[in-house]
Amino acid sequence: MYENITNLGKAEAFVDEILEIIDHIKLLDHFSVDEIKILCHYMQCFAAPRDYTLIQEGDKGDFLILVLSGAVDVQKDIPKIGIKKIAEVGAGVTLGEMSLIDSQTRFASCVTSAPTDFAVFTRESLNEVLIEMPRLGNKFLLVLLQLMAQRLRDTCDRFLPSVFGVPI
Amino acid sequence: MYENITNLGKAEAFVDEILEIIDHIKLLDHFSVDEIKILCHYMQCFAAPRDYTLIQEGDKGDFLILVLSGAVDVQKDIPKIGIKKIAEVGAGVTLGEMSLIDSQTRFASCVTSAPTDFAVFTRESLNEVLIEMPRLGNKFLLVLLQLMAQRLRDTCDRFLPSVFGVPI
Ligand SMILES: Nc1ncnc2c1ncn2[C@@H]1O[C@@H]2COP(=O)(O)O[C@H]2[C@H]1O
Ligand SMILES: Nc1ncnc2c1ncn2[C@@H]1O[C@@H]2COP(=O)(O)O[C@H]2[C@H]1O
Repeated sequence: MYENITNLGKAEAFVDEILEIIDHIKLLDHFSVDEIKILCHYMQCFAAPRDYTLIQEGDKGDFLILVLSGAVDVQKDIPKIGIKKIAEVGAGVTLGEMSLIDSQTRFASCVTSAPTDFAVFTRESLNEVLIEMPRLGNKFLLVLLQLMAQRLRDTCDRFLPSVFGVPI
Repeated sequence: MYENITNLGKAEAFVDEILEIIDHIKLLDHFSVDEIKILCHYMQCFAAPRDYTLIQEGDKGDFLILVLSGAVDVQKDIPKIGIKKIAEVGAGVTLGEMSLIDSQTRFASCVTSAPTDFAVFTRESLNEVLIEMPRLGNKFLLVLLQLMAQRLRDTCDRFLPSVFGVPI
């Protein structure tokens, strides 16, 4: 996986960034330092250059990406129109969680627009966490749920005006 | 809650519908009958007539709704444009999970367009399930995640063509 870019090793070197990113769940309590360390142990980190395709629309996908730093364009091939940028995301965002969760193909491509450090978390790792440590699993699933709820809000807020008549 | 419409009592009377609706998670195993019964015990059911507001945009919200039968319009007040229907949903869909998850105000209003039976699941109940039965909690959060992933796909597929130039 991602053999052609710099491997930064396990995410233990990024405990603070990861804590900063995921420790905002509204339900249950905060992640303990041990819980973060366990998650970090599961995550492999990489450093991608600009214009690097992290995720390709249409591929199968059994991992998600946690953007630690940098910037990523989310691009979608829109019928009769072609490939368009539908979102720009940065540090603190997950990418690829949709396919990880429901096994459909990747909904969009994710291409770096700046050098980007990211962590990878596979479905296999998620399964293991859910089975071995269901309480930690709940906290992580809540992180994903909150990110997705915010994503739907942002996407609707950006698109609805022009869907109903006010071009962006 | 919902005092002015018919109270159908606990969801135990709807075990089959609820099993049909939520038992499609791709990760972990299926819900056991006992697990479904536990969830049903937490859910109170109601029968709403047509044109009944289940959820009001802007309200605080600490419960989600599982639509058992019927049809609901999701309406949003779009700046400079007014209230528009942004989605139509039916049996098997949750509504109100966004505020339940991240405590923001209701993102849109949900108004029945046909007589609708629904189950209510509160944040208090979700907290109790997550704490008392974390494995059942995992499965339920996965249900919500799958529904939200599908919602983002549907919303983007419907809106992107007209955002980028092909009016609906
Ligand atoms: N509207 C959007 N805004 C931000 N990110 C998105 C949007 N749509 C899809 N994505 C991300 O792009 C990813 C592509 O792969 P997945 O479908 O696995 O998961 C997708 C989401 O993480
Ligand atoms: N684009 C959409 N498609 C379908 N349902 C939606 C959409 N946007 C919001 N909703 C639902 O409307 C609900 C309004 O209350 P919540 O924000 O709690 O949760 C919201 C979602 O469940």
